[in-house]
Amino acid sequence: MIIKSTFIDTPVYGEIRIRENEYVVVENGIITGIYGSIPPEYANENIIDRTGMIIIPAFNDIHVHAPQFYNRGNGYDLQLLDWLNNYTFPIEEKFADAQFAQKAYRDFVNGLILSGTMRAAIFATVHMDATKILMELIEKSGIKACVGKVNMDRNSPEGLCEDTDKSIDETIELIKWAEGLKNVEYILTPRFVPSVSEKLMIRLGDLAQKYHLCVQSHVSENKDEVELVRRLHPKAESYTRVYDEYGLLRKGRTILAHGIYLTDDEKKIIRDKEIYIAHCPDSNVNLSSGIMRLSHYKELGIKCPLASDVAGGNTLAMNKNAVYAVQISKVNSFINKTDKTIGLSEALYLATKESGQFFGNVGSFDENCEFDALVIDVDSLQPDNADAYKKLQLFMYDGDYRYIITRYCSGKEVILL
Amino acid sequence: MIIKSTFIDTPVYGEIRIRENEYVVVENGIITGIYGSIPPEYANENIIDRTGMIIIPAFNDIHVHAPQFYNRGNGYDLQLLDWLNNYTFPIEEKFADAQFAQKAYRDFVNGLILSGTMRAAIFATVHMDATKILMELIEKSGIKACVGKVNMDRNSPEGLCEDTDKSIDETIELIKWAEGLKNVEYILTPRFVPSVSEKLMIRLGDLAQKYHLCVQSHVSENKDEVELVRRLHPKAESYTRVYDEYGLLRKGRTILAHGIYLTDDEKKIIRDKEIYIAHCPDSNVNLSSGIMRLSHYKELGIKCPLASDVAGGNTLAMNKNAVYAVQISKVNSFINKTDKTIGLSEALYLATKESGQFFGNVGSFDENCEFDALVIDVDSLQPDNADAYKKLQLFMYDGDYRYIITRYCSGKEVILL
Repeated sequence: MIIKSTFIDTPVYGEIRIRENEYVVVENGIITGIYGSIPPEYANENIIDRTGMIIIPAFNDIHVHAPQFYNRGNGYDLQLLDWLNNYTFPIEEKFADAQFAQKAYRDFVNGLILSGTMRAAIFATVHMDATKILMELIEKSGIKACVGKVNMDRNSPEGLCEDTDKSIDETIELIKWAEGLKNVEYILTPRFVPSVSEKLMIRLGDLAQKYHLCVQSHVSENKDEVELVRRLHPKAESYTRVYDEYGLLRKGRTILAHGIYLTDDEKKIIRDKEIYIAHCPDSNVNLSSGIMRLSHYKELGIKCPLASDVAGGNTLAMNKNAVYAVQISKVNSFINKTDKTIGLSEALYLATKESGQFFGNVGSFDENCEFDALVIDVDSLQPDNADAYKKLQLFMYDGDYRYIITRYCSGKEVILL
Repeated sequence: MIIKSTFIDTPVYGEIRIRENEYVVVENGIITGIYGSIPPEYANENIIDRTGMIIIPAFNDIHVHAPQFYNRGNGYDLQLLDWLNNYTFPIEEKFADAQFAQKAYRDFVNGLILSGTMRAAIFATVHMDATKILMELIEKSGIKACVGKVNMDRNSPEGLCEDTDKSIDETIELIKWAEGLKNVEYILTPRFVPSVSEKLMIRLGDLAQKYHLCVQSHVSENKDEVELVRRLHPKAESYTRVYDEYGLLRKGRTILAHGIYLTDDEKKIIRDKEIYIAHCPDSNVNLSSGIMRLSHYKELGIKCPLASDVAGGNTLAMNKNAVYAVQISKVNSFINKTDKTIGLSEALYLATKESGQFFGNVGSFDENCEFDALVIDVDSLQPDNADAYKKLQLFMYDGDYRYIITRYCSGKEVILL
């Protein structure tokens, strides 16, 4: 495939690269070359001409709860622990019903596709069968994802609280089942420290090692939650250290969402172990959790890819979540006056390249990268002859799925289920 | 017209009213009754049945710059005064060209309609002819608006800086011209103190009195701007008092946008004169202006209707601006810890009823109110049998124009130009 357009990406944090009217050559999903004019060996090939449009890397969503899709906007008068009990757990219980799961997960996957999210790290629920349904839908759709059945066996409502052995057995069944899939990778998904017993944590740590798995969970989202972890694990040095004790901080392979209230020791271990802190600015405001000091973390060398965190966050649209990141960095600078703000280039990087490293060689238009891309046409939103960067700004700040003309994941066009 | 549906509105600040499966009767644009069952005298009338959908009051946008519509998302790395010089003034200069104005203003008015905004207080540019074009488009569209040509005769770029006499002459011509329109009311629009000479301010004050006009301007948006006003008017007690000196604070008839850095004296005069402080939370973050203490102002009795402030704000969508107001009130409570946060009920009130008082008897579904309404169908976004409040939350937080099935302004259906 050869595609001609204006390519905008962020190969380096803080830098926007705009290549106008260039040609990208893709073979077997991989970019094999980017050219200012068409090389002679491709002279007779069919060229997909998207002149006047812009092409950006597809979005990645590094932390999202599929079963909470219908709950967007619900219950934001509450804070985390009450919100989980009153809104989140009740809807998750419904995924015992396969028919409900089939409809809800199909709507969710279509929501990702519409938004231009081609890769995601996804929490399902505790239910094995519903998790298989989600995996099948993703497999069929052509987007790629790490999906995990949630593990939780303490401090949980009856309908979701698992028997520890059964939780492990079903996890193993899903790990093996996912090995047959092309687009889905299994990711271990202990919900968060408060709802996972030590016994379960030990066994999940063993599975992580045995099957070479990625891990996703939550950390330090809310002050009451941090305090609860302190009461549950009085001997642990910190919330993050609890995961580490059980072998769940896997170098460059673990995602912890939020990380608002990290101690210096936690920041250090997270940086050293190359843990991904999923930055969820929208969710952190909706649930009054607090503000993560993004630029401070980035300066320390911590990876902070962006995430929607639906349904703490209210939208899957990663362009909007990128804008929230910019806005919250400005608000943070009102409070922490020496912290830097970020702009659109940093936010686009965090929504594409930063998380792209987790998923593979993804997130920018460089040779040997997988071609994950969105073709964007904002002409009807613009005055005539707007430049490419203006088009990008308008799409990110006030654009939506209507303006995403084509979505590619690993070189293949993705359409709605 | 008789319409059956579930009506959601906020007749009082902080209270949501949900009336399920009721009948609203509208005659000549005015609500004449709301009934739980259809009264016998209407038994043979045709009923518009919107069962399963929700109907909310249409949005009002109390502060928006029509010529900046194409600039959404542009230049938010800058703060107010630099942003005006680098982005705002250059696009406003283009409205000397009637053809450009015709296209841009048509796109803008369609943007309002799509978003469900049926009333707005609008800044045009200094250009008389372009302002007439905008007024004609609104007149034709069926939405209602207060529109003003901007007055500015100092500290302005050459292409926009007016001759004082010409500024007044053209304003008078527009005032008279607007008298022939049904849907448009002329509103005096001195840009802001820094760009309006004392001579011009005096003459605008005279016009306000002579023609019984409303007034719109800006106040205390940005610390550098406040300091500039202090230097320009060293004898004035405050920024707000400058407007008062020239008769531009008209009781219940003046809108001042932003008002972030008001002194106690300013808050008092604004409350006493029933001035509307247009609350622009999105814009105030985009331009790093600061955070307006909404709940503090509301407790003082100040009117704070919501506004998009496009293009300081990045979207005309008032559902999103309402969400921003909720979110920014939460962030404000991180800083001003005793300030209350607001929820969706308060935000909906500020986007409908608070501003509805400025435009007339508008903004709730009560007898004698004009029927401005949006019929909303979020069924495809929802699980089955979601309740009405869930539907409202989902629409406000992640809905868009697609889900607004019908728009009514003063009882008449409004469609795109």
